[in-house]
Parts: sequence; C-alpha cells; structure tokens
Amino acid sequence: MNFREEQKRKTERIEAVIEKYLPRQEGFQKTLMEAMSYSVRSKGKRLRPMLMEESFRLFGGSTEVIEPFMAALEMIHNYSLVHDDLPAMDNDEYRRGRKTTWVEYGEGMAVLAGDGLLNLAFETAAGAFRFASDFAASGRIAQALQILGNKAGIFGMIGGQTADIEAESGEREMTQELVLFIHEKKTAALIQAAMMIGAVLAGASKEAVDRMEKAAANIGIAFQIQDDILDVTSTTEILGKPVGSDEKNHKLTYVTMNGIEKAKEEVRRLSEEALGILNSFEYKNEFLCELVRSLINREK
Amino acid sequence: MNFREEQKRKTERIEAVIEKYLPRQEGFQKTLMEAMSYSVRSKGKRLRPMLMEESFRLFGGSTEVIEPFMAALEMIHNYSLVHDDLPAMDNDEYRRGRKTTWVEYGEGMAVLAGDGLLNLAFETAAGAFRFASDFAASGRIAQALQILGNKAGIFGMIGGQTADIEAESGEREMTQELVLFIHEKKTAALIQAAMMIGAVLAGASKEAVDRMEKAAANIGIAFQIQDDILDVTSTTEILGKPVGSDEKNHKLTYVTMNGIEKAKEEVRRLSEEALGILNSFEYKNEFLCELVRSLINREK
Repeated sequence: MNFREEQKRKTERIEAVIEKYLPRQEGFQKTLMEAMSYSVRSKGKRLRPMLMEESFRLFGGSTEVIEPFMAALEMIHNYSLVHDDLPAMDNDEYRRGRKTTWVEYGEGMAVLAGDGLLNLAFETAAGAFRFASDFAASGRIAQALQILGNKAGIFGMIGGQTADIEAESGEREMTQELVLFIHEKKTAALIQAAMMIGAVLAGASKEAVDRMEKAAANIGIAFQIQDDILDVTSTTEILGKPVGSDEKNHKLTYVTMNGIEKAKEEVRRLSEEALGILNSFEYKNEFLCELVRSLINREK
Repeated sequence: MNFREEQKRKTERIEAVIEKYLPRQEGFQKTLMEAMSYSVRSKGKRLRPMLMEESFRLFGGSTEVIEPFMAALEMIHNYSLVHDDLPAMDNDEYRRGRKTTWVEYGEGMAVLAGDGLLNLAFETAAGAFRFASDFAASGRIAQALQILGNKAGIFGMIGGQTADIEAESGEREMTQELVLFIHEKKTAALIQAAMMIGAVLAGASKEAVDRMEKAAANIGIAFQIQDDILDVTSTTEILGKPVGSDEKNHKLTYVTMNGIEKAKEEVRRLSEEALGILNSFEYKNEFLCELVRSLINREK
C-alpha cells in the first residue's frame, strides 16, 4: 500500500474513533449537540489525532488508552475553529467550503458549541483512566491530561490566538519574535500535544518526550512558514484559495519579513531537524516520517 | 464566632486559594490574563468552592487535594458568566455593579478569556494528581475530574444554558418540565459538582456521593425558585435590582406557573429534604447546614 492509500485508511479509522465519543443528538440539548457535531464531522485530514497515534506507535504503544485523547484533541482543534470564526473574532462565513457554525446555528449557539466541545474534550480525556490498571498507568494518563491542558491553554494555543488578534487589530506591533510566538503557540502547540501525549502514554522516557516536543515545534512552525510561502509562490488554482493575500493585506509574516529564499531555507532546516529527532529513537515509524514530509513539502 | 463572621473568614481564605491558581499577567498573553482575572477577582460569595470544601470536611477530608478543584470550579463558574454576558448571548453590560468582561476588554478578548478560564480549570484540576500517593488516591482524583466535566458540560451546565437561550428566543416552548430542567442543569449542576467532588475526594462511599448529588440538586433548584419568589415578593430596595421583571417580561418561571404559595411550599420541601440528607451521615457539619439554610431562606 502506498503512503496516500495508507493515510486514507488511517483517516477513516480515526474518524470512526472520534465518532464514538460524540454525544447522541437527543433531549433538550439536541441543537447544541448537532452544532458540535457539525464542526467535528466536517471532513479533514485528522492530522492531530494521526500524529498522536503514530507517535504512540513509535514508542511501542498499542492499547486503546490513546483513543479518548485522539478524540479529545480533535474536539479542541474544532472548538478553536468554531470560536475563531465568530464575528467577534475572524468573522468568517465559510470554512472548507461549508458555512461556519455561527452562520448555520447562530452566534449564541456557536459560543456554546465551542464551550461544549472544549469541556467534552477534557471529559473524554479524563475517561481514559478506566484503562489504567495500576498507579504507573494512571500517572501517565495524568501527565497526558496536563500536557493537553497546557498546550491547548493560555500558555499554548489560546495564548497564540490572543497575540494573533492583538497583532491583527494593530494593538500590538508585529515583530519577528511575535510572528514566531504566534506560529509556535497557535499552530505548533496542538501538534506538540499530539506527539508528546502519544509518547507519554506509550511510556517513553522524559528525555524522549522532550525531544518529541522539540520535533513537534519544528513541524508546526515549518508548516506555518510553508503556508506563507505558498501564499506567494502558488496559484489560486492549486491552492483553492486566493494567493497573494498576505501582501495585499500588508500582513507581516516570516516570508514578508525575511524573503522567500530565507523562508524556504528555514523550512528545510526545521524539517530536517525534526526528522532527525524522529529517526533517533530505538524504534522507527516510517509512516510518521512520511506524514511529516508530506505536511512540510506540500504544494497546497 | 457567629455564622456571618465565620462565612466571611472562610470566603477570604477561599479567595487566597483561588488567587494562587490564577496566571501571572505577563508576556504576549498579558491582556488575556488580565481579562481572565478581571472576572474571577470580582467579589462574590465563593459559594461553589465553599460548598465543596465543607462537603470535603463533612466526610473527614483535610488535605490540600481539594484546593485545585475549588479554584477550578470557581473558574468554570466565572467563564460561564463571561460567555453568558456576551452580546450574542444575554448581552449584559453590567454584573455586580461592574462592567462585564466584553465591555471592558472587547468581545473577541471576552470569548478568549472564557475559553482560557475553562481550559485553565481542567488544567488546574488535573494538577491535583501531584497529591496522589497511591492508586486509590489517583482513582478518586480521576473520578472528581469526571464529575467536574460531566456537571459543567453538555449534560450539565452547558446543556441548561442551551435550553435557556432556546426558551428565551421562543425556539422552544416553556413547560414545567423545561423550567425544572433549566434550573437543574444551569444552576444545580455546578452545586452538585461542588458537593460530590468534596465527598469523593474525602473518600466517601458511592452511596454517600449519590445522596450528596440529590441534596445538591434540591439546593440548586430551591435556590432558583427562591430567586423567582423574591422577584415577586421583594422590593427593589432590598433586592438591589428591579423586581417584577419576570411578570413584565412574560417570563415563565416556577412561580408564574404554579403561584407563590405552591412555590414557597416547594422551596420548603426541597430544603428540608436536603438538610435531612446532610444530617444523615456519620459526621456532621453545622456550618454547611447553616450555609444551605442561608441560601434558601435568603431575602435578597
């Protein structure tokens, strides 16, 4: 089976895992549950749960304990999109070709759907304790929960969102340091959560988990810089969205600040370092390496 | 020391506990952290953490493990107020005589501050595992986390919020069943979380925790019906807010549906049953009983 086929098969399996943890749409909360599922069920690459599961496998993990965390991380990713699209935030009406949650269900329901997904994520992850059969296992789950909270929260993704809306509104001046802060927090933090939690739950050493954190930071930042590069070098046909929008909107990005060549060089450096880390452990996961390459070298 | 003095002293101690878990206001997330603290630091009775701590003491609990959960529950209560006040929800500009978070910091920042508090609540509660010294202790913390998630989430408080905004917008017809559903979920659920988590962390039996859940439901519902009664029987001077607003707004409440006498009778029945439960355990907590009485018999 080639990489694309394997990725497709794995994506389908992950979607079945997530589906298990979505609430049934019934009772007085029916509309809320519909609004929550509307976002989570929209098709995507399920990148974060996939990176989590593959990191878990890299360190020899094979049990179900990873599943509630995979579902939880996808819920957190989706709640952040639902709230990010709100009129009070980015005011986006479409995402992946579908109406956004607030357009479909109203603003109040979109606020509650996001809250509901964030809360359900932690409720779901906390449910993983049912798989713990001894004190050491429950300690790994506790550690995974804390990584999830930390990377999704004010020192992680929410912190990045905050800096991003302040920069876009002009309340905070954009600097190179701030660009990297936003990339690291807004994008890389959930990728770090994915890869660190996978490693922790498989029983990896603290030193290995630290290296996964570093690899994931590189992957997340490279992914974002590649986004900015494509905005300059790609065509609207390939990208499926308007190109050149960063320059038009006078948006300061790593590319507009450093030029295209330096940006490409940085993507190369970050990804080589990340792959070097992934290949430095006792076991290998070739699919994980291929997935990382496909993310960073993508053309759309 | 009389009850009021003791309550005041305990409130101050609880505020010191909560303060320990609030983030320092620094870095690129400074404004976010200010907005989060703005809500949590506004003065209140700290009823939920107080009920939690007193329930913990009722079952002989005496260690620090309760503290992160006390802070977490207060964060959850406050995030729900921050989001509830948003223009897309209740559109309130003032709360307890101060500008609401979105008026003070803007709508986008208020969405993020609420998200930040909800996420920090679970992050804080998950931190309680550092106090677990064996498998049984970590099991109690895991159970407490799941109660927190369940009672705050779509089957608890968020579920009640959803039904409430649908009823107020006329999308859902108000019935007696729906009034009680909203009271139970929107108000009683966090009181249940408080009292159940206190009991669980102190090592109470499953049967005792179930009875605390029942007592807390009664307390929460009685508290809400008392609110509706005061809207009819009190004066603006005593209440500090306009009376008669439910009738004026054609709001259907337990009182407008059943009359004032039946409502008073129901408050009496619910509170007697709750106090009966609290007095049925091996140990007693007179302060807890007095606190419950003061909530239900209050005149403002």
